[in-house]
Amino acid sequence: MTGTKIPHGHPRAKSLRIREELIEHYNNGIVTDAGLIAHGRGEAFDYILGENTNKPALNAIKVAAAALLTAKKPVISVNGNTAALVARETVQLAHAIKAKIEVNLFYRSLERELAIKKLLEGSGASEVLGVGKEASERIPELSSERRRVDPQGILIADVVLVPLEDGDRTEALVKMGKKVIAIDLNPLSRTAQKATITIVDNVVRAMPKLVEIAAKLKNQGMMKCNEILLNFDNQKNLAESKTLIKERLSEIAKTSKHLNIEDEKHEL
Amino acid sequence: MTGTKIPHGHPRAKSLRIREELIEHYNNGIVTDAGLIAHGRGEAFDYILGENTNKPALNAIKVAAAALLTAKKPVISVNGNTAALVARETVQLAHAIKAKIEVNLFYRSLERELAIKKLLEGSGASEVLGVGKEASERIPELSSERRRVDPQGILIADVVLVPLEDGDRTEALVKMGKKVIAIDLNPLSRTAQKATITIVDNVVRAMPKLVEIAAKLKNQGMMKCNEILLNFDNQKNLAESKTLIKERLSEIAKTSKHLNIEDEKHEL
Repeated sequence: MTGTKIPHGHPRAKSLRIREELIEHYNNGIVTDAGLIAHGRGEAFDYILGENTNKPALNAIKVAAAALLTAKKPVISVNGNTAALVARETVQLAHAIKAKIEVNLFYRSLERELAIKKLLEGSGASEVLGVGKEASERIPELSSERRRVDPQGILIADVVLVPLEDGDRTEALVKMGKKVIAIDLNPLSRTAQKATITIVDNVVRAMPKLVEIAAKLKNQGMMKCNEILLNFDNQKNLAESKTLIKERLSEIAKTSKHLNIEDEKHEL
Repeated sequence: MTGTKIPHGHPRAKSLRIREELIEHYNNGIVTDAGLIAHGRGEAFDYILGENTNKPALNAIKVAAAALLTAKKPVISVNGNTAALVARETVQLAHAIKAKIEVNLFYRSLERELAIKKLLEGSGASEVLGVGKEASERIPELSSERRRVDPQGILIADVVLVPLEDGDRTEALVKMGKKVIAIDLNPLSRTAQKATITIVDNVVRAMPKLVEIAAKLKNQGMMKCNEILLNFDNQKNLAESKTLIKERLSEIAKTSKHLNIEDEKHEL
């Protein structure tokens, strides 16, 4: 239900505004109904995580920035929810790290692809790959429409940033020898397990942070980037995110505090 | 994206079919976009819980059946998602326990109310309260449209079953001296904390189970029901659900198994 006024000072104002944005882009064909449901799943994990960018997330963002800055052919893969929520930050990041932007969708239609391309261009993108016939190549081992890639983009990329990804494709890209950076609120997902670098955070917080840190790191040079990459252990970092979730649940359960998820659920 | 064929043997076939049903009822105006997102949140908690009716849930269902059978004026409150997912079971339960059915929505419109009424009648309901002008009374202390109730239903009920409820209304109904039975997948929610009896389970599993157990208990008489009610401690039962969540997370984290949520997420 768009157009509802969100009261000032509402405890869930931020989360409700993000949702409004998503629904707006649902109505213009960028987001799918499966995308709305997936957003809800993300919300649940974000609540449990405390809705902030925690230490392991920040660490992974720094490593991701280093991987993108040292990449030869970095590509940012964009789907419907990513375009709806962080189109501007996606373009900023592409500029900062000199990456290409490619549209990649499970439910492909030329209309959707063009709507996403238009949104990205409106946010300042000069080039958007993977639209229409440009997505002429196939990733091996994938059966869904997500296998379709641009020969100028993901196919030849060495590092791929895949916000809000599916596990199948992450695994396939890693098997092709690419470094995959995933942004996923569920540290237990297959995407999170299979990615080279996993950022367990909300894409709405992680992307601007990634832009900011990439700009800083760029000034510190490639030696610094390589050092950061060498010292990173994704499994160890993921284990920290899992521990945080367990601690949060214990804390909430102990103090009888509640997760205010139902402050939104009343909108059914 | 409705109409997509779900492959036989797909690990998430059941969950995908439930989603299809929800989206079908989204397209006919029964479910709202906020309802789709809320469903996603539920999915996340259901994954964590293991997608089955566990011991504390079963216990709460038994107690709920006893409370409904011993009630003088039981009412089942129905919103969009409940109608979409368990219309048939709602009517079966109403028959088994001689309860009234009342439509109660956050986003009220006569169209939506009538669509839900029609769906319930198509599932065998002979009477559906709370539609249009019939919802002429107000629950005190509530500002949302959910305060509107039927003077023949929730207003005078002693026990109210509220599947997929919001915390505000649960609290208000309890303050009015009613027993509130909630079905909520998040044991940490305010609804879960404030309800008299909290069933931490998926409504799709809990409702048919409730119908089945109510039918059995009915044959065992009111003494048995009262005994069950006397021996129940909702906070203790809720604590068991919370412990289960923590154990599941520990187990998943330890064995490096993953939650297959992304098997659905690829549909973005």
